[in-house]
Amino acid sequence: MNRVELVEQIKRKRSFLCVGLDADIEKIPAHLRDLEDPIFEFNKAIIDATKDYCVAYKPNIAFYESLGSKGWISLEKTLAYIPKDIFTIADAKRGDIGNTSKLYARAFFEHMDFDSITVAPYMGSDSVLPFLTYENKWVILLALTSNEGALDFQFMTSNASGQKLYEKVITKANTWGNKENLMFVVGATRPEMLQGIRNLAPDSFLLVPGVGAQGGSLEEVAKNGMNKDCGLLVNSSRGIIYADSTEKFAEVAKVKAKALQEEMKIYLDNFGI
Amino acid sequence: MNRVELVEQIKRKRSFLCVGLDADIEKIPAHLRDLEDPIFEFNKAIIDATKDYCVAYKPNIAFYESLGSKGWISLEKTLAYIPKDIFTIADAKRGDIGNTSKLYARAFFEHMDFDSITVAPYMGSDSVLPFLTYENKWVILLALTSNEGALDFQFMTSNASGQKLYEKVITKANTWGNKENLMFVVGATRPEMLQGIRNLAPDSFLLVPGVGAQGGSLEEVAKNGMNKDCGLLVNSSRGIIYADSTEKFAEVAKVKAKALQEEMKIYLDNFGI
Repeated sequence: MNRVELVEQIKRKRSFLCVGLDADIEKIPAHLRDLEDPIFEFNKAIIDATKDYCVAYKPNIAFYESLGSKGWISLEKTLAYIPKDIFTIADAKRGDIGNTSKLYARAFFEHMDFDSITVAPYMGSDSVLPFLTYENKWVILLALTSNEGALDFQFMTSNASGQKLYEKVITKANTWGNKENLMFVVGATRPEMLQGIRNLAPDSFLLVPGVGAQGGSLEEVAKNGMNKDCGLLVNSSRGIIYADSTEKFAEVAKVKAKALQEEMKIYLDNFGI
Repeated sequence: MNRVELVEQIKRKRSFLCVGLDADIEKIPAHLRDLEDPIFEFNKAIIDATKDYCVAYKPNIAFYESLGSKGWISLEKTLAYIPKDIFTIADAKRGDIGNTSKLYARAFFEHMDFDSITVAPYMGSDSVLPFLTYENKWVILLALTSNEGALDFQFMTSNASGQKLYEKVITKANTWGNKENLMFVVGATRPEMLQGIRNLAPDSFLLVPGVGAQGGSLEEVAKNGMNKDCGLLVNSSRGIIYADSTEKFAEVAKVKAKALQEEMKIYLDNFGI
């Protein structure tokens, strides 16, 4: 999916919600566990319930990988089930030397047909570039993450440039890709940093996890991070998919997703989008 | 596998060789491609040919993942085929927020039974700690990688401590784990850095990729990196497994692995190990 299609979808649905498909076999409702493919059945019900309110789905690959080859089959089925006009994110946080990153790109962009993949920046240019050679596919590069461990290295300040590591990642990566094929992960738990990041990447889309279970505020994210094309994909996983653990889980997920969409509509309206 | 068993194996085999099982469907000998599981057949032959000369096997997960669920089956079969007294490394370079890293740990340490996994440090403590809770399992943390992109961020110098990022990663990680459950990746393409790294992590094992195809020198690595327990696992992938592309590939792989082992024996002897 290209940038124009993504922005068009946001405007049409009045939403910049990404639903995290973090289907954990230990957390999904008990009545699904006896089915042949409980993970896929769970995702299918969540997708049916939320697809009108979100513009993206983001399976975190760890949940599937933890089930071995069976999990990969569930993932492939899930991806095939997502409506084609919704943006898909493989939250894989991959990154390796060039010839190996090329294989990860093949895995997620060719063998599967994800629109985008999250990539870890530590290994630098040749770990990222192979993902950027695909047309209408995206790298979503980790910049400032939402977890506590983000403090360990991401805020280290360079004695040469005065930039923090996460700032340097954004600056450097903008020489590899552009607003048409590169987004950044910026945690909602640090909305006060969003304005500074907007200065470094005014036109980029930002994928913002951490709203909900991790404590980030949607209002703060919208206030500090929105640009004229919206420029935000705000992810919620646990707050939607595990809001209820009974047979009504999908119904409740729909209510939760709709509530977020309605709040997002206000911010889009206010911003004149 | 614990540290004592690993060191014992090195002393017995007079080797600190790790063979990288980077089985690429496009590179394996043509005559294997018609078999039901060419990747597994290739690995099986490589393992049979090299198991007396190496102490570790390291499948890079990208090669398997690029084949989808079929690739995971090949990986599971390969892991089951590796003799139990040989150290196994899932070269996965994973790392995510705490509750997700826990699932990656489950994938590689429970669903599969790898001895160790490579982990990317960018997201900090909670992305690494879940892997360190398993007894006799290891994290191999990326510190100074062998690729060109390593120059982009890993050499950034802190204005607070004067440490480079890769040095800070080592210092910080040593507060999370210890020589019994934590190793570091240090590329053979930068052997001159090994002495400095030994000062920061005198007792740690280092996994050293980049000998062979990437141009690193085994002699330099041994000279600068060896400690009293050896403390090195030197990886070779392409230089062994793709040394020949005919039906003799396994025979040639054996010759290549044996040659490296014989060179390693000299360095171990010289070091009095």
